Amino acid sequence: MIKLVLDCFGGDHSPAANVEGAVFALKRFPDLELVLTGDETAIRSELAGKAYDAARLTVLHAPEVIGCDETPTEAIRRKKESSLMRAVELVRSDDTVHGMISVGSTGALVAAATLRIGRIRGVKRPAFCPVLPTMNGGIVGISDSGANVDVSVRMLQQFAVMANLYLQCVYGIEHPRAALLNIGTEAEKGDELRKAAYPVLAATQGLNFVGNMESRDLLSGKYDLVIADGFSGNVLIKSTEGACLEMLKKLKKDIYSRTINKIGAFLMRRMFAEEKRFMDYQNYGGSVLLGCKKVVVKGHGSSKAAAIDKCIEQAYRMQAGELVEKTALQIAQLATEE
Amino acid sequence: MIKLVLDCFGGDHSPAANVEGAVFALKRFPDLELVLTGDETAIRSELAGKAYDAARLTVLHAPEVIGCDETPTEAIRRKKESSLMRAVELVRSDDTVHGMISVGSTGALVAAATLRIGRIRGVKRPAFCPVLPTMNGGIVGISDSGANVDVSVRMLQQFAVMANLYLQCVYGIEHPRAALLNIGTEAEKGDELRKAAYPVLAATQGLNFVGNMESRDLLSGKYDLVIADGFSGNVLIKSTEGACLEMLKKLKKDIYSRTINKIGAFLMRRMFAEEKRFMDYQNYGGSVLLGCKKVVVKGHGSSKAAAIDKCIEQAYRMQAGELVEKTALQIAQLATEE
Repeated sequence: MIKLVLDCFGGDHSPAANVEGAVFALKRFPDLELVLTGDETAIRSELAGKAYDAARLTVLHAPEVIGCDETPTEAIRRKKESSLMRAVELVRSDDTVHGMISVGSTGALVAAATLRIGRIRGVKRPAFCPVLPTMNGGIVGISDSGANVDVSVRMLQQFAVMANLYLQCVYGIEHPRAALLNIGTEAEKGDELRKAAYPVLAATQGLNFVGNMESRDLLSGKYDLVIADGFSGNVLIKSTEGACLEMLKKLKKDIYSRTINKIGAFLMRRMFAEEKRFMDYQNYGGSVLLGCKKVVVKGHGSSKAAAIDKCIEQAYRMQAGELVEKTALQIAQLATEE
Repeated sequence: MIKLVLDCFGGDHSPAANVEGAVFALKRFPDLELVLTGDETAIRSELAGKAYDAARLTVLHAPEVIGCDETPTEAIRRKKESSLMRAVELVRSDDTVHGMISVGSTGALVAAATLRIGRIRGVKRPAFCPVLPTMNGGIVGISDSGANVDVSVRMLQQFAVMANLYLQCVYGIEHPRAALLNIGTEAEKGDELRKAAYPVLAATQGLNFVGNMESRDLLSGKYDLVIADGFSGNVLIKSTEGACLEMLKKLKKDIYSRTINKIGAFLMRRMFAEEKRFMDYQNYGGSVLLGCKKVVVKGHGSSKAAAIDKCIEQAYRMQAGELVEKTALQIAQLATEE
């Protein structure tokens, strides 16, 4: 059995999407058990009429919700009865629970996970690692993408090692091609941090380090893993998403500006629907928080049921692949090499 | 008269594109005078048969070329007879010359411009400021986009002030909306550098500072100027360009995969041609190097004649708008406020 907690509040489509996603996931994974946290009446009313294995789903009542506009550290201290904090405390205290999923406040989740669930021994900072689709049908992970803005060489090394195991474990990529995000591909490029990190990454056991990469090649399919500080990793992922969305928006506007374009687009409607699906983050799940003692997945705030289902699947696969144990082993080994 | 030097070698289409661009620009600006540097025989052979005002075009022979694979500091020391160094030395020594344009090695140009042309008094570091088209038909500048990877708060302030004047002077934007590239829009977001820079930028005289911005909004049209360290600014611009290009490439591939798409795309050919033109950097000129004692413009290595013409226009407008003088004044004023 794999037992996970799903925070059912805090997202744009909560709790309906969360509950529906949970029901999907229970159907797909017969050895999955879920605990849903949040207002019990609301959750029960969403569950009403749905077919699911009641023996594998429990509800843990939590009357409060942490909003995205609240100061994280303050919110997690004050709102102990929130769906997020109830989930975190259950993960912390119950040995049979393997991890959690939330689409609520990112800051509150990172703070609560770090302080209450705790880091794996030796992990300096947990790292966010989302994945994006590449243009040749693969995926690419970015570690860290925003959990840590001021980082050291050893932190970058840990971000790389943790994400490397994650990509192996969840996506089955045997030797992820890992590259350091930089302003040029030559080994001597970059700021002091990058120059110092390069040889350390190149010497890291078990890491298939292929050198520096430029941000323009993120979606090219040349790399499986981008190693970055949380500041530039965040700039990278958001600018890529932003550029794709702005381009689609512009295409749409231009299509509607002339009849001939509308006819053309009508003929190409199947292709455009595929492009849209390809670019929809809902199909790629959430951003996992690597380095915690248990599995933690952060879904997008606007996640619908399909995205929630994907996030649960990610957490399930992380646990099934024993990612936490493997990470603990490799982090301990890194420490002996330092 | 505005007198500029054009380095005619070092680009993918040099010297043909450079010479053709020079001839275009001379036609458009009757008070423009150009000096072309590079192999005189090659330049003269490109000029042969073209109609231009010979009184406003001279050729300065330079037998060597600096390649993009050479170490910049070494190349500028060793290749004194290169088209780039001849251009730089002429700008340095001739009071009637106002600036230069090159599409050659970026590193060599920055090093040579900094060391030989020199910085404006008080400028800590020159900054690269390219502009990109926004989706609503405007433009957005990014300063710095790669000249400086390890920066201080005062450098960020100077990058902002210099680019602010540039956008006013060359693009006629009266009060550019300037934002600090960050990982969130709230004032307290970011790393130590960003947290320290925010109040300094907010208090900078003459700067219309609108707060933090996220990279996803680069092309939205909400901002005229992005203030960034050269590392994240470089990640920003290259990931945006990369995402747009990869998406176009994917669209093209998908169009060719089915006949119905090909028919649709044929009907929409005018629109697609416009999208391509819209995204073509050739129409937006080069990346200007702000903070030097004379005007310096770096064009893309793959610039064709139209892009070279645009780069010359940028340099021309910078000089016509007295950008160097205005920058010197404002940098001096900043120093008195510190």
